Amino acid sequence: MSLVPLPSSIIPFLEPYLPREKNDRPFVTLTWAQSIDSRIAAAPGTQTKISHPETKTMTHYLRAYHDAILVGIGTVLADDPKLTCRYGNFSKIRPVVVDPAAKWDYSKSTISTLCQELKALAPIILTNREAEPLKENVELLQSHGGSYRALQFLLEYEHNWIEVLRELHACDIKSVMIEGGAKVINSLLVSENLVDSVIVTIGPVFLGKQGVEVSPPAGLELQDVAWWRGTTDSVMAARLITLPEVEDLDETTE
Amino acid sequence: MSLVPLPSSIIPFLEPYLPREKNDRPFVTLTWAQSIDSRIAAAPGTQTKISHPETKTMTHYLRAYHDAILVGIGTVLADDPKLTCRYGNFSKIRPVVVDPAAKWDYSKSTISTLCQELKALAPIILTNREAEPLKENVELLQSHGGSYRALQFLLEYEHNWIEVLRELHACDIKSVMIEGGAKVINSLLVSENLVDSVIVTIGPVFLGKQGVEVSPPAGLELQDVAWWRGTTDSVMAARLITLPEVEDLDETTE
Repeated sequence: MSLVPLPSSIIPFLEPYLPREKNDRPFVTLTWAQSIDSRIAAAPGTQTKISHPETKTMTHYLRAYHDAILVGIGTVLADDPKLTCRYGNFSKIRPVVVDPAAKWDYSKSTISTLCQELKALAPIILTNREAEPLKENVELLQSHGGSYRALQFLLEYEHNWIEVLRELHACDIKSVMIEGGAKVINSLLVSENLVDSVIVTIGPVFLGKQGVEVSPPAGLELQDVAWWRGTTDSVMAARLITLPEVEDLDETTE
Repeated sequence: MSLVPLPSSIIPFLEPYLPREKNDRPFVTLTWAQSIDSRIAAAPGTQTKISHPETKTMTHYLRAYHDAILVGIGTVLADDPKLTCRYGNFSKIRPVVVDPAAKWDYSKSTISTLCQELKALAPIILTNREAEPLKENVELLQSHGGSYRALQFLLEYEHNWIEVLRELHACDIKSVMIEGGAKVINSLLVSENLVDSVIVTIGPVFLGKQGVEVSPPAGLELQDVAWWRGTTDSVMAARLITLPEVEDLDETTE
């Protein structure tokens, strides 16, 4: 399925928010499309059309600047997505799936088919240390050039994001576009100093109370806010307010 | 407190959404300012700054085109608002407060003070038929030129909007700007064929799960969508999809 052309005004709009080199972890772009009432789907486990095709093109344009795309297991199970970059020179991007309990049957996925046909990079699947992926999935993934990586505490702390990002950095991933679902977004929004750019597409629809909501546990401010006005959508680009880095405090002192 | 100037591009942006004459009820403009995560306040009973001063000017500009402003009792108790129009020639606008149980102590309100000083029109307060407003409030309101009006079923059906609008029409109100709070907005969004224009200001902040949420019980589509991009906010103007008028069905037939 081909993409509609990229509106040219999107290029200068996004330029200040594109990845820059970081020292200790990948640059993180957090992005999603939501309704006016901040729902990313009409119901759990479903996919809902919210935004205009031009903002889908924008997503692929953004992906072209990143080494990896990360999504949670819920999104993979609901959407069976391709997680490829279909903009420009079809640059290859690494899918990363956060799947603490190793629930994903990789061998049955669209991504696996694309890898078999050499049309995509094989994913990195992050599991909890106690998870036991199916042997056939481990072997198939390895044969495609991907890997399971077991992290400590991935499940216990819902999403131990700093550990995830350090693991990706160790895999030479210098920038990652994080695209959902709601649990991933909500937990990242309140993870201090881990998100660099936030790009939110708002489509002109109300999905209602039953929808899957994006709203972090606590409020937060944004800075360097810019808006792009599309045919039917508005897109906000911003940075999270970065808190000053603090030294680790010795917990035994007063 | 004076308003910042109205950005001139707001005038053509809003023009298609301004009130037109309706036959059987007032023209209804539903409007609010929300965070990205569709919260209108950081916590119940509080007032939260969300939008840029220029969109506050927009609200007063919009009020100048309406005969009345309607808010729910929660908003009046939380904000003690003026509900005046401070744009242009300071045209007088009628406050309408939906207060089913007659909880509002009108005599202690800022609106009452403004009326005493002849700076505002006195409100219409809509109560349930069983409610008993304080005698001093009834008398004070009457002396200011306002009135309590008792409606049937106002409380029982949460908000019986068609009855409310017919009552306002009977008071020669041809257009009403409905500004909140969340219960009023959420119930109106799913009241078929009662809302003509929807104007939503989205400010670049997340208020988080504890905030007061705007999300209707069910999803709904919008039409004739337009966006205005401000300094820090985006404003969406739209019409709700209008359902075809149906004849009242006789409930005793199959």
